[in-house]
Amino acid sequence: MPSNHGVIFKAVPDGYPVLGEHMELVTREIDIENFSLGDGDILVKNQYLSLDPYMRGRMRNPNIKSYVKAFELGKVLEGSGIGTIVKSNNKKYQVGNEHLAKEMSKFNFPKSYFLGVLGMPGMTAYVGLNKIGKPKKGETIFISAASGAVGQVVGQIAKIKGLRVIGTASNDSKIKYLEELNFDGVFNYKTCNIDEVIVLTHLNINARVVACGMISQYNTKAPYGVKNLLCVVSKRITIQGFIVFDHYHETESFRKDIDEWLKQGKLKYKEDNVEGIQNAPEAFLNLLTGKNFGKEIVKIC
Amino acid sequence: MPSNHGVIFKAVPDGYPVLGEHMELVTREIDIENFSLGDGDILVKNQYLSLDPYMRGRMRNPNIKSYVKAFELGKVLEGSGIGTIVKSNNKKYQVGNEHLAKEMSKFNFPKSYFLGVLGMPGMTAYVGLNKIGKPKKGETIFISAASGAVGQVVGQIAKIKGLRVIGTASNDSKIKYLEELNFDGVFNYKTCNIDEVIVLTHLNINARVVACGMISQYNTKAPYGVKNLLCVVSKRITIQGFIVFDHYHETESFRKDIDEWLKQGKLKYKEDNVEGIQNAPEAFLNLLTGKNFGKEIVKIC
Repeated sequence: MPSNHGVIFKAVPDGYPVLGEHMELVTREIDIENFSLGDGDILVKNQYLSLDPYMRGRMRNPNIKSYVKAFELGKVLEGSGIGTIVKSNNKKYQVGNEHLAKEMSKFNFPKSYFLGVLGMPGMTAYVGLNKIGKPKKGETIFISAASGAVGQVVGQIAKIKGLRVIGTASNDSKIKYLEELNFDGVFNYKTCNIDEVIVLTHLNINARVVACGMISQYNTKAPYGVKNLLCVVSKRITIQGFIVFDHYHETESFRKDIDEWLKQGKLKYKEDNVEGIQNAPEAFLNLLTGKNFGKEIVKIC
Repeated sequence: MPSNHGVIFKAVPDGYPVLGEHMELVTREIDIENFSLGDGDILVKNQYLSLDPYMRGRMRNPNIKSYVKAFELGKVLEGSGIGTIVKSNNKKYQVGNEHLAKEMSKFNFPKSYFLGVLGMPGMTAYVGLNKIGKPKKGETIFISAASGAVGQVVGQIAKIKGLRVIGTASNDSKIKYLEELNFDGVFNYKTCNIDEVIVLTHLNINARVVACGMISQYNTKAPYGVKNLLCVVSKRITIQGFIVFDHYHETESFRKDIDEWLKQGKLKYKEDNVEGIQNAPEAFLNLLTGKNFGKEIVKIC
């Protein structure tokens, strides 16, 4: 009988989630033949699962409202994935179909790209840069976490749009990758002697800051106090946050552009793959601490 | 011989400026009849001087660049004023004329209004609300320092535009004034039990924050660390700073609107007057600590 691995949400973490304390790995056998489906249900065999920083935000007390609902204690941690339907009680979804199968057939890229450059992180990059940032050719853009699932796409689109691209990352392999992507300036923020407060004090007059996340603040009870917000006034800065979910009606133009750039070789995408659900909790922690490199994907045998 | 009082910039303050240490009161006699003017110079007898928070930003090391030049050590502290020309070596400015005289003749308000509601602070309110904030009827606006030179104008224009106006100030007389202005909600932030972090955590989704200054941060070596900036992402907040100087090309529409609202009684303006330059340093300090109430104006005999 096939076994089904899962990660259960055990307790709300204060800081970084710990396997055994906040997450628990479970293995259950599943009898597919006799598995009973409710009306409209489908049973999916996962091939790829996505690990994303926003998932940490779901590991919270459910009484705290946010843009995405809290995980339920005792239940499996949810995420986006790609899989094949092995059983269906829903006329819209036939056995053997892959979710997104129709869309995928139009593209000749790894399936996992639909969790990355052609999925939510890619769209975060696309919307954040184009719609929120509204870049003009010749401007300079600074990207933090520039080799990450979102950052690497932002930087490459920015190059396509004629911007001067400066990126930072946390180790030298990531920096080398950014150089390969022809970023105009790159530096390792862990080893360079830069001001702690680089972002605001080094911005130009009328600069725009586009904020899609603040991963360094997700796992701490003592959030960092930003002390130079006064620059917002003196430098006429605009800081704008956004959530990609609000912009999903623009999926078509996003997919069209990314598809074209991938085909033309103007856009590359670096993934960080782990095999098997049993390695997902560690990979998730690596994602939160910056030890991963590129879009985090769990491959399932 | 008439005497001329002045306040000299003696030293760059770290915190609040102290009279005697960073500012010095001087009195000089001036022989108007024999006073020699350079080519193009005029000699003005001041009637009103304006004290404004941005002046604190000019009391800095001149090597630090900002949107307005640093005061020169050893020279008189400068500010906006209204006066009469008593001697002129400039064909454009005739003796007896008041600066802004032509514009003033169109309006029937106290002259000092040109330093307040019809001047830089009023325009900060007007531009910040209309052009940066872009309010829509029915929205709620929260105003800090709501009885100040800028805040009281923001709140009243917001009422005219059909907004729900919430304001905060530092004592009960100010709160009473805000009630008289028909603000929809007012509270004394010194005595109310509000969250220290009210602004960001209590904002609505898609809120806009318009920042024209951060007076609490002008006189400290230990700036306040804002720890809840993550709300900018989760609540899709936009924070935008601006400097009114960048918008002076819109003076005409500003004056036209304010003039009309003043005439219709829709707009009131509270001034805090002190008499004589010798009282200006203390009034300036009161302005920085929030002990003043309304637009700070120095009347000169």
